[in-house]
Amino acid sequence: MIKKRLFTPGPTPIPESVMLRMAEPIIHHRNPEFREIFKRVSENLKYLFQTKQPVLTLTCSGTGGIESTFVSLFSPGDTIISVNGGKFGERWVKMPKVFDYNVFEIKNKWGTAPTENEILNALKQNPNAKGVYLTHSETSTGTATDIKLISKVIRENSNALVCVDGITAIGAHEFRFDDWGIDVCVTGSQKGLMIPPGLAFVCLSQRAISAMEKSTTPKFYFDLRKALKSFADDDTPFTPAITLIVGVDAALQIIKDEGIENIWHQHERKANAIRAGVTALGMKLFSNSPSFAVTPVWLPENVDWKKFNSTLKKTYGITVAGGQDEFTGKIFRISHLGYYDEFDMVTIIAALEMSLNEVGYSFTSGVGVQAVMNYFQNNK
Amino acid sequence: MIKKRLFTPGPTPIPESVMLRMAEPIIHHRNPEFREIFKRVSENLKYLFQTKQPVLTLTCSGTGGIESTFVSLFSPGDTIISVNGGKFGERWVKMPKVFDYNVFEIKNKWGTAPTENEILNALKQNPNAKGVYLTHSETSTGTATDIKLISKVIRENSNALVCVDGITAIGAHEFRFDDWGIDVCVTGSQKGLMIPPGLAFVCLSQRAISAMEKSTTPKFYFDLRKALKSFADDDTPFTPAITLIVGVDAALQIIKDEGIENIWHQHERKANAIRAGVTALGMKLFSNSPSFAVTPVWLPENVDWKKFNSTLKKTYGITVAGGQDEFTGKIFRISHLGYYDEFDMVTIIAALEMSLNEVGYSFTSGVGVQAVMNYFQNNK
Repeated sequence: MIKKRLFTPGPTPIPESVMLRMAEPIIHHRNPEFREIFKRVSENLKYLFQTKQPVLTLTCSGTGGIESTFVSLFSPGDTIISVNGGKFGERWVKMPKVFDYNVFEIKNKWGTAPTENEILNALKQNPNAKGVYLTHSETSTGTATDIKLISKVIRENSNALVCVDGITAIGAHEFRFDDWGIDVCVTGSQKGLMIPPGLAFVCLSQRAISAMEKSTTPKFYFDLRKALKSFADDDTPFTPAITLIVGVDAALQIIKDEGIENIWHQHERKANAIRAGVTALGMKLFSNSPSFAVTPVWLPENVDWKKFNSTLKKTYGITVAGGQDEFTGKIFRISHLGYYDEFDMVTIIAALEMSLNEVGYSFTSGVGVQAVMNYFQNNK
Repeated sequence: MIKKRLFTPGPTPIPESVMLRMAEPIIHHRNPEFREIFKRVSENLKYLFQTKQPVLTLTCSGTGGIESTFVSLFSPGDTIISVNGGKFGERWVKMPKVFDYNVFEIKNKWGTAPTENEILNALKQNPNAKGVYLTHSETSTGTATDIKLISKVIRENSNALVCVDGITAIGAHEFRFDDWGIDVCVTGSQKGLMIPPGLAFVCLSQRAISAMEKSTTPKFYFDLRKALKSFADDDTPFTPAITLIVGVDAALQIIKDEGIENIWHQHERKANAIRAGVTALGMKLFSNSPSFAVTPVWLPENVDWKKFNSTLKKTYGITVAGGQDEFTGKIFRISHLGYYDEFDMVTIIAALEMSLNEVGYSFTSGVGVQAVMNYFQNNK
């Protein structure tokens, strides 16, 4: 009777009511019933991104969503500035190269975010840059970029489109597409939106929409001009993942009822509580610009990752994310993105305590959980 | 208390047990629990395609699946022979042009299938053709191509890869990937597989896998080399649509328990019963090479499509598919693909009778339903 619990930054847990909505008999995507749902989803996605601009729904992973922006907005030979501070940033450097774009890479140490000066220097060296790709919350390092500030810097110093990978950030971090002058933002369904993977969402500014007309990169499925044209009729160019869209409808209703500002605030509180908990246990935080979606923690020196992870998983039913690349076995990551409340944060820290205890790490039992509870009680 | 029933060729109805499996708490795609499911799905997909070759799972629609084969197996300037006998064949002519391939189109009248001679002529005119794209069951026209015969013709007369759009055919029509010498076959999840849309499956021969090494077309998400590499580890290169894969697992188990030959036979019987039913009502079949997945029927002369369709939908809760392009309002299409039994065939013909009666078409009441029942009783 061990309950299985995911504390992973995608897939994230799905509200029970949303799971059951998706299990209802399937409807046809050309029926008026579906169009009504899709229209409401598109409207509520605008609320999620804080925009009046269209938010397009694609059937693919988040990576497919980002690819759609590369192939739809730019052309071979165009210069793209891409920030690489982790596994995903690295992908947004590799991907545009595949399409023969000229890529200027800003390489950040894992756990750090790009600075204003790094962006300014890159823009100076690439006055013709057509786009700057930023990762709002880098999943592999739990590191957040100050998108509001960096977007301002880009807009004031160039004509490059501000392109944001918001895959793990949307629904966790404050994000204002219109007010902050963002041109492109992509998110995925299995993150802050709390539904299974299979959908990507792409928000486009008018400048981005204009850029689509000039793009010569070959594309078909990921051609956002097709998606935008269908969008005007509350439709999609290809058969969409219908049940997942029904799930998004239910999830967005929860988000709307809660209020997006409240949701951002709750994520900040959950992140702070987890930081307080692990710090109280004597562990150190990995990132110097920590995300509100996922918290990476240095594994204590004498703790073996495999043993620790196996205890968490097998004895306690808990899945956290490990470190990637050179940080495999050195850090682990706790997600608090999406459908988690205060008691879930108590649970994960309690599970860490019990597992750490079993693998021989010494600390005063209960201090982690106490720190989480204290934080929540003192910070509403 | 009107039940809503889909008789559309994708999405098709989903077995209740499959819907409930997909509604279970989500699991992580890097967990051993998921890998076990994915491994079993991949094995059972081989059974579905009747092959020992890999069947790759992509998160996208069927169109995305076909695109992955175009961009992964060929290069700009390559010649592709593409059969266009309807909306989908038309798409497989347009798509390769986008990637700067040289396309030789075999244009078939809607409702007809390509002949041996048409294929032979095309091969003679294009001795360097790298691939021939065929639609096994063209959804827009309910027309089946004799893939076994045409594949033999291609293999005996050229080195072109035999590429099959099996999107509406797999699970309805006999299909033997290995025995018939097929190189590429794609299907989608929302068809004979009886799960919601969002997944495409791509089966590749060794010749197709070798062709991938030579392809220079830019690609990332649809790069089948990536999918094949991950496949070896029971993994996917990008976050897959986890819940849909869990659904495929359940659906493939049903198919395996039933036996693929039985499923093909049942589809043939359902198609024959529907043909008997509509013919008994005095209506005419549209296709001269009818599919076992979907049956297109000429609307009787004095019957208004909008009125008829609205009666079916609003009074009786039944959704059928209309005609497309120049056949809009002239034909309609009844799907019997996937999760339908004999009584569903009785139901759709009964609904046609009741709706036709209400829109003033005259026939002997009950003859359609009687023909369906007679067919089933006399043809086991």
